[in-house]
Amino acid sequence: MDRREFLLGGAAAVAAGCTSVGGKVCGAKGGNPLFHLGMAGYTYRDFSTNAMLEAMERLDVRYLCVKSFHLPFTATDSEIATFRQKCEDHGVVPYGLGPVTSDKFDDFKVAFDFAKRLGVDTVVAIPYKDGPKKSDLDRTGNREICERASDLCDSYGVKFAIHNHGPDFPLLFPTGESICEAVRDLSPRMGMCLDIGHEYRSFKDPAGTIRRYHDRLFDLHLKNLTTDAATRKGDVAVPLPRGVLDLPSVFRALIEVGYAGCCSIEYEADFKDNYAKLAECVGYYKGAMDML
Amino acid sequence: MDRREFLLGGAAAVAAGCTSVGGKVCGAKGGNPLFHLGMAGYTYRDFSTNAMLEAMERLDVRYLCVKSFHLPFTATDSEIATFRQKCEDHGVVPYGLGPVTSDKFDDFKVAFDFAKRLGVDTVVAIPYKDGPKKSDLDRTGNREICERASDLCDSYGVKFAIHNHGPDFPLLFPTGESICEAVRDLSPRMGMCLDIGHEYRSFKDPAGTIRRYHDRLFDLHLKNLTTDAATRKGDVAVPLPRGVLDLPSVFRALIEVGYAGCCSIEYEADFKDNYAKLAECVGYYKGAMDML
Repeated sequence: MDRREFLLGGAAAVAAGCTSVGGKVCGAKGGNPLFHLGMAGYTYRDFSTNAMLEAMERLDVRYLCVKSFHLPFTATDSEIATFRQKCEDHGVVPYGLGPVTSDKFDDFKVAFDFAKRLGVDTVVAIPYKDGPKKSDLDRTGNREICERASDLCDSYGVKFAIHNHGPDFPLLFPTGESICEAVRDLSPRMGMCLDIGHEYRSFKDPAGTIRRYHDRLFDLHLKNLTTDAATRKGDVAVPLPRGVLDLPSVFRALIEVGYAGCCSIEYEADFKDNYAKLAECVGYYKGAMDML
Repeated sequence: MDRREFLLGGAAAVAAGCTSVGGKVCGAKGGNPLFHLGMAGYTYRDFSTNAMLEAMERLDVRYLCVKSFHLPFTATDSEIATFRQKCEDHGVVPYGLGPVTSDKFDDFKVAFDFAKRLGVDTVVAIPYKDGPKKSDLDRTGNREICERASDLCDSYGVKFAIHNHGPDFPLLFPTGESICEAVRDLSPRMGMCLDIGHEYRSFKDPAGTIRRYHDRLFDLHLKNLTTDAATRKGDVAVPLPRGVLDLPSVFRALIEVGYAGCCSIEYEADFKDNYAKLAECVGYYKGAMDML
């Protein structure tokens, strides 16, 4: 399959909600034909769009969740076409947008519109509401935004994947459970982007969250940490093989529930000289997938 | 476990023929407690000893097969002590020497003596004999050297691991089978360092060779290639996740036979700017091991 065929396969997969891909995306042996390795655009927050896409091509990571600093949500149709062409030139398929963090519904409305124009089916979101102290500790999840987003999900055919942020914001969707319980009466397109690092820091088992709430699992941030096991504090981001998270249990849970989205690497220890660390992450993922 | 404990565990493991290690050497979850990731010194042929050890420490690769360009076999006891201290400072355990390529028994005698002084239990060897044309095609394995090495193996307690070199030297131990059949009447310490890339290029299944000849398997060169599957020609060395070799089948065979030596990365596509490629290899190995 040449790159064009791969990309067509990838684009079709995105259009179909990532239920299948035609290309080799999960390691040399393709042990896992369901879900795919992706990249959270945040990993490249200090890179230009071109530099990011070049690095992703060298790394052989083919799916991207687009951040606004790589493609502003004010982009014209022509700018979007240029961006998509650049992605195609590097063998990369955009699959989602975000995370978008806001306490204003209008910002999410813009994201939905933009997702539709860009041709992706997922908006990763952190809809919040400030508390009286305007501190991290009393910032809460914004139910009103969720209700209004729920209507948009269905009219746009776009999923709203709320990102769990762990104990740093204890009232703002800290865990997968807190997200999924909060949206269970809303559209089935309302769900989560499970950050397994924040989930672990919240004393939750990411694999258990995946098994329990897989019908609301639309995206996943793949990472590892050297968090202290007893206190779950003092975390340092490390390449996938070097931390305390039980990643095999995560992969097995994803296979078990038939997850068909992306596992997107979010590496936050070094935003500049990160190529070799990401290569180690990519190698780890492919080694694990090949053993399936 | 601190580094000193790890190294003591590693040194003890080497002394015991690598049957166990105390430290975390095979991925975060330690799914494989038997064999270990190592490095063929040849991978760092263009690096100084210090630069190699620094890179290995950053990569978290803890076992080294020492080449003479990193420690000449003429080294004094004091130079050996300095080398060992450097290794210890970087958390690296030397486990073998070589490959040593020669048509003179005396060169192997020097290697045995040096292995003993360095405190490693394996000499990787390519004992050859030139043919009348002195070409690659008529160079053969040297039976006389093997017979004399067999006696040294037993008196020194050091294994002689002959390296298979594939179709480029069709009469010089091209395959694991050609090695093991040639030494089956000699000491049980006579065996092979199986290069899985050359084995594949010889139309052999490395996993099958491991299962059939595991009692003669003392070392392994881990690599991947983009060799054409039909002709097994035109090979290009690539990082572990990117080639055609079925590495999971190799890992499963090693587990099945209870292999307790090293899987040493030999990466030959780039001898200078190889850190990120090796990081991808290390990640792949650890991802695969963690899934065991």
